[in-house]
Amino acid sequence: MAATNSLCDIGFIGAGVMGKNLILNLADNGYRVCAFDLDHHRLEDLLEQDRLERGEQPARIETCNSYTELLARVKAPHLVILSVPAGAPVDDVCNKLLDAGLKADDIVVDTGNSLWTDSVERCKRYEGRLIFFTTAVSGGEVGARFGPSLMPSGDPYAWARIEPVWHAMAAKVDPDSGQPIERFEPGNPVKEGEPCAAYIGPIGSGHYVKMVHNGIEYADMQLICEAYDVMRSALEMSPQEIAAVFREWNKGPLNSYLIDISAEVLGTADPETGSPLVDVILDRAGQKGTGLWTAVSSLEVGCPAPSIAEAVFARSLSTRKVLRTRAAKKLLGPDVEPVPAEQRETVIAQLHDAMYCAKICIYAQGFDLMKLAAREQGWQLNFAEIARIWRAGCIIRAVFLQSISDAYERDHKLSNLLLDDFFIEQIAANQGNWRRAVADASLRGIPVPALSSALNYYDAFRRESLPANLLQAQRDFFGAHTFSRADRPENEKYHVLWSRKDRPMVKV
Amino acid sequence: MAATNSLCDIGFIGAGVMGKNLILNLADNGYRVCAFDLDHHRLEDLLEQDRLERGEQPARIETCNSYTELLARVKAPHLVILSVPAGAPVDDVCNKLLDAGLKADDIVVDTGNSLWTDSVERCKRYEGRLIFFTTAVSGGEVGARFGPSLMPSGDPYAWARIEPVWHAMAAKVDPDSGQPIERFEPGNPVKEGEPCAAYIGPIGSGHYVKMVHNGIEYADMQLICEAYDVMRSALEMSPQEIAAVFREWNKGPLNSYLIDISAEVLGTADPETGSPLVDVILDRAGQKGTGLWTAVSSLEVGCPAPSIAEAVFARSLSTRKVLRTRAAKKLLGPDVEPVPAEQRETVIAQLHDAMYCAKICIYAQGFDLMKLAAREQGWQLNFAEIARIWRAGCIIRAVFLQSISDAYERDHKLSNLLLDDFFIEQIAANQGNWRRAVADASLRGIPVPALSSALNYYDAFRRESLPANLLQAQRDFFGAHTFSRADRPENEKYHVLWSRKDRPMVKV
Repeated sequence: MAATNSLCDIGFIGAGVMGKNLILNLADNGYRVCAFDLDHHRLEDLLEQDRLERGEQPARIETCNSYTELLARVKAPHLVILSVPAGAPVDDVCNKLLDAGLKADDIVVDTGNSLWTDSVERCKRYEGRLIFFTTAVSGGEVGARFGPSLMPSGDPYAWARIEPVWHAMAAKVDPDSGQPIERFEPGNPVKEGEPCAAYIGPIGSGHYVKMVHNGIEYADMQLICEAYDVMRSALEMSPQEIAAVFREWNKGPLNSYLIDISAEVLGTADPETGSPLVDVILDRAGQKGTGLWTAVSSLEVGCPAPSIAEAVFARSLSTRKVLRTRAAKKLLGPDVEPVPAEQRETVIAQLHDAMYCAKICIYAQGFDLMKLAAREQGWQLNFAEIARIWRAGCIIRAVFLQSISDAYERDHKLSNLLLDDFFIEQIAANQGNWRRAVADASLRGIPVPALSSALNYYDAFRRESLPANLLQAQRDFFGAHTFSRADRPENEKYHVLWSRKDRPMVKV
Repeated sequence: MAATNSLCDIGFIGAGVMGKNLILNLADNGYRVCAFDLDHHRLEDLLEQDRLERGEQPARIETCNSYTELLARVKAPHLVILSVPAGAPVDDVCNKLLDAGLKADDIVVDTGNSLWTDSVERCKRYEGRLIFFTTAVSGGEVGARFGPSLMPSGDPYAWARIEPVWHAMAAKVDPDSGQPIERFEPGNPVKEGEPCAAYIGPIGSGHYVKMVHNGIEYADMQLICEAYDVMRSALEMSPQEIAAVFREWNKGPLNSYLIDISAEVLGTADPETGSPLVDVILDRAGQKGTGLWTAVSSLEVGCPAPSIAEAVFARSLSTRKVLRTRAAKKLLGPDVEPVPAEQRETVIAQLHDAMYCAKICIYAQGFDLMKLAAREQGWQLNFAEIARIWRAGCIIRAVFLQSISDAYERDHKLSNLLLDDFFIEQIAANQGNWRRAVADASLRGIPVPALSSALNYYDAFRRESLPANLLQAQRDFFGAHTFSRADRPENEKYHVLWSRKDRPMVKV
């Protein structure tokens, strides 16, 4: 442990992968951190990493042996950041800190993957005893170390204190190009550019927004997998060839971190067999729950987000490998020939445009969900800002987010991204290929649930009249659920006396 | 109130629409019922209905003024049936009954639309004080009156007492044809045939199964709406013409109550304007929550049920009429001609086969969900029997359910309906048209989320290899989530050191 007489700026609890990197990031930015972890090895590992990185410079990080010591070594009122597993451990640490003497004006910031409703409950539970604040962190290990996207929420007074710290730590965007400024050098943090950290709103809202980010991420990844699958199955292209297509796509409107790493992955060989890496990886997808939470929330809030739900279902189905293997032997597909070589470029161009249109719809679903949830919760979300802080640091980072931010800047009250003129034009110009890509996959027997649910979303969204009129009549028939008439005020409800021959309609 | 010296067989609380009809059904079947409702008018209405129906016969139903009186007038140990709104009212009545002297061997049966997890909690809460049993009822008012489909769950000893009552009340199926025996005559209940009531399992399981029934119902209704929409929009057919198609379809494998009533609805005119009824009905769909619960459960259980989720989302989107009306003016669709008249029959045939294949997939999703939920909850569900009791009385009743029952009779451990030989053949024979219908709708800009999510489900289900291998590589790249190798035991996890040039793979 480094000995020092001056007090630390920040107490930090939890030195796991994320915690360690956040601490090093804070240290790079000149904050003195006192770290504590129940696992002593993690603290040693942290100090060792600091030694490696700082070379001959003095130690930037301190560690301690107890919650009491942590509080004693950090300036009051205390700012304590937690990076511990979501759930019970968060409460455990809060209670231990209270036992150690934490005061009502001390701030505790949860940076874990908590469920947003848990954060709301915690804030209430600790009210008057500590200030419970949250910050959702996106960007994985590398983001945590060199600049994550940060979604803070809670008490605005606490935010005033936290803001400079978060702005320093966060990923930065070049304001001219809208591109991330990526410099991964210990001790030399990115100081210029626009920070990807903005106050989201009342407690819970930050984690809600991060949850939707992850839901979008699920759908975005699923889209890429579908494009890969079509190229692999219908065009019989090799992973290397597909990597080249993705690299090409990464120069245009699909430019994004996820397309970039997909190209990287597809260009990588298994060190052991020499086969393409993807060919040795088992096709059972894992999931940690945030995509599922997003889909559940979309159902509960009553916001259509079918492509996010399809992405979650696709992961579920992927885990049922034994069942699929049996089904593959028994269930017939269509009888089709592979696409002839001379049509390859056409099909790739279709896929590109389909990806782009579907991507717009996926973001439209995600932003719409945030809007409806915010209305329900009474949050005032700034969507232009949310899109801006996703331009760097996080997994879905992409130039595309700038277009979304611009759309909300043009109209802060935009009802849905699909109604923005820029996106209207983009889809109008590209929808022919989108439709052909979905139609071809349907005829060829290649599953494209994200591409096609997005298309169905678009086509339903732009319909003044949907067949829900028939549905309402069915419901009235079997359950006397009543209906409104299109030619009368909607609050007037009608019912047909179906069992009578003349079927009179009564107002109820 | 009818005066009598002999005690009643059953106490019944709640004489709303469903309660009243269930009481009359019990009376038809010779059970003496003592009814109570906080709303005195409902009891008068019930007695009046009894008078109308029985003519000169003696009164079959008694009413009373309090919970205490109810218990005094019903044989002990008491059998008390509740038909009260789901939620707090159920507990309220249970507590009032306990206050009035209900004993530990008395049975209370909740027939409302309770959330299944609430039933599980209630059973625990009242353990040792009363026997809490549930029965989910499907079939609406008419079903309740003349024969519903009943899904009872709870204590097996309580079931032994309830069974004869439920068998008498339930809808009946002709064992030879598999068709419902429909006779809607007061005082002349259907006594022959197979009753649509079977013990489902431990508390909660009956309502879970009913919830999935409703999820399937949502998707089935959505499918019909999509077929209607294609005929209306692409084929420019009138509601009357579409009614004729549905009547035709009702003679084949799509034969079902929902197709039947859709034809009825489409053949009905608005009494006021003379226009087709559907044209005056506002296209905003209502929902009561069971479809949503099913979709949420499918996400939580990890069972792909995309067509059920799409049906819920379609209802949500339908409610956003203002947004859609604006979008309709701004968002372009494809530039297509209506289908020429000479192709109409071809397109209708495609739709028919698409409906049939998609319907198989929807039921496959619903039954799969029950299977996975049962595994999680430790229930032993008899799927052949569940399909059998859905053949009559309930909203999704159809000859089709006989084929499902047969499939589970052939193999009680069938993993998924799609693996049954009969359904394999049906889809193999009809999939060409299904694919063409989905492809055409995509090209024409007509939303068919249920038809196409079902197709994507089928195509993903029959894939031994899904592109989740790429997804796992992406997750390992940005989050070090690790992956399994296809050529090694699945519990061995690997990680690629992506930031190194040579990208070595390490076992973790």
